[in-house]
Amino acid sequence: MKIEGKDYRALWIENKTVQFIDQRKLPFKFQIYTADTVKKIAYAIQDMIVRGAPAIGAAAVYGMAIGAKTPDKTAKILAATRPTAFDLFYAIDYMLKAINKKQDPFLAADLYVNKMIERCRLIGEHGSTLIKNNMKILTHCNAGALATIDYGTALAPLRVAHNQNIKFFVYADETRPRLQGLLTSWELYQEGIHHALIVDNAAGYYLQKKDIDMVITGTDRVAKNGDFANKIGTYEKAVLAKENDIPFYVAAPKNTFDTKLKSGDDIIIEERNPQEITNPFGKSIMPTWIQVKNPAFDVTPSKYVTGYITEEGITSKPPF
Amino acid sequence: MKIEGKDYRALWIENKTVQFIDQRKLPFKFQIYTADTVKKIAYAIQDMIVRGAPAIGAAAVYGMAIGAKTPDKTAKILAATRPTAFDLFYAIDYMLKAINKKQDPFLAADLYVNKMIERCRLIGEHGSTLIKNNMKILTHCNAGALATIDYGTALAPLRVAHNQNIKFFVYADETRPRLQGLLTSWELYQEGIHHALIVDNAAGYYLQKKDIDMVITGTDRVAKNGDFANKIGTYEKAVLAKENDIPFYVAAPKNTFDTKLKSGDDIIIEERNPQEITNPFGKSIMPTWIQVKNPAFDVTPSKYVTGYITEEGITSKPPF
Repeated sequence: MKIEGKDYRALWIENKTVQFIDQRKLPFKFQIYTADTVKKIAYAIQDMIVRGAPAIGAAAVYGMAIGAKTPDKTAKILAATRPTAFDLFYAIDYMLKAINKKQDPFLAADLYVNKMIERCRLIGEHGSTLIKNNMKILTHCNAGALATIDYGTALAPLRVAHNQNIKFFVYADETRPRLQGLLTSWELYQEGIHHALIVDNAAGYYLQKKDIDMVITGTDRVAKNGDFANKIGTYEKAVLAKENDIPFYVAAPKNTFDTKLKSGDDIIIEERNPQEITNPFGKSIMPTWIQVKNPAFDVTPSKYVTGYITEEGITSKPPF
Repeated sequence: MKIEGKDYRALWIENKTVQFIDQRKLPFKFQIYTADTVKKIAYAIQDMIVRGAPAIGAAAVYGMAIGAKTPDKTAKILAATRPTAFDLFYAIDYMLKAINKKQDPFLAADLYVNKMIERCRLIGEHGSTLIKNNMKILTHCNAGALATIDYGTALAPLRVAHNQNIKFFVYADETRPRLQGLLTSWELYQEGIHHALIVDNAAGYYLQKKDIDMVITGTDRVAKNGDFANKIGTYEKAVLAKENDIPFYVAAPKNTFDTKLKSGDDIIIEERNPQEITNPFGKSIMPTWIQVKNPAFDVTPSKYVTGYITEEGITSKPPF
């Protein structure tokens, strides 16, 4: 991804130390968080220095490489960070197998990350065929390069279409509570893609006016029947898209598809800290007596999905 | 309404000066804004010191009383403040007629306000029959006493049911951008009604889980066919309620029903200042380069409405 014209990834490794773009600071400050221990990597995942299912997976493979001498202990620490993203568990499993086979853990981790980037690039190639001139596209949360090391999942088709000189406009849901829409807005701004940020409440308004031609989101986990978990509010947008006959696409690499999970009913939903709601970016916007509930994800049944965009192409059913 | 155990109204008049509970400061500070000129009242409406269709109407009748010597000029200033709430225009019309008939304008204004309070009380009586023990109820924005002088529209049934010792739980959407859910939360907190604030994105999640039994909102304007305008995001909740077979009620006095308006397509939607999104309560949570769009209302087609609760009762069709 471009950041002030220079190429970056959401995270990378230098001298066995992981460098993360600190996503808690964006879009206000561009700052690097470094982690040379499993504990620091676990903290980076838990505190959302790194976020987005594929990027969490990348953090986990490097974490496993750093803690390769005690693989089971390392796996346990990393697996306890966040419950919903399937990539995390997929990545830990991948590394346990590699370590078991006596592969070089850092090489195995690099291979994982490079494969992931290539998958996202391919998602971009396939997804870009859906984007025509003058389209307006809604996205929720951030499924961009920040969430996936590079390219993005939901944002990859937009990057590719933009590079093909297709002119389109993006509505980015702000995505309360953590306002990841700002990360999407920041990525689009860096690439020069026309867009506007809207409050989550306004997405229905634009869908109803047919001022949106297509919705595209990422996902943290897809079940065998095509139900998928994603950032809280995704279910709302999917229902509203269907109600207004607007196609809804989910973009994800195949490793986000959890073949062992029968349906979305079995996906564990993480409840996060109330302060995410009351103190966005550490700024208190609510009185202390406020009681809140803060589910971080929801599950969208497959019937609302027009298509799944993976590295292999676009399919109307999950590509198992 | 109770505020720290004492009875209050959203606004009242003392010595020809209007006293407003300054809703920009709530729920952080309880502060009174006084207005003794038409200009100051217009400012109070425009800057949302007072908000909610019935309360705006009350501000307007007192504004008309204060500016009764030049009724047409006063009407013009007040009508230019906000475009969507029907009560504003209804109130101005009411006062133009009273002034024309040489009625005492302050007495006419008081009569209007007292009638409005009685209507809200009756909305509470009728609506409370829908609320049973252990129900969970979702509301959007603030249609409470603050929005309506006293009792509220959507919150009136909750107040009455609570006084009847019915036990229920309220989910209050935070209602971005202006977070009027905090006003709802504050009112419920003052009354001792159990509730939690949720981000707007989470309403669909709880509706899908059937963890909500009923949705109730206010409205700024109802068209002849039953379509209604309300705070941005209301349309989303109505669609999601229907999708999950959960009843959706709209509470409003009959003067919010605009008999001259054929359908919701003709309702003017106000676009408000981008700073409402970027600077909640004056606190900057977004970088300055962010581009936003900020529609303040949406229109919900009548097909999503289970019933209209007015001072006359509950009807499945608009009570014209």
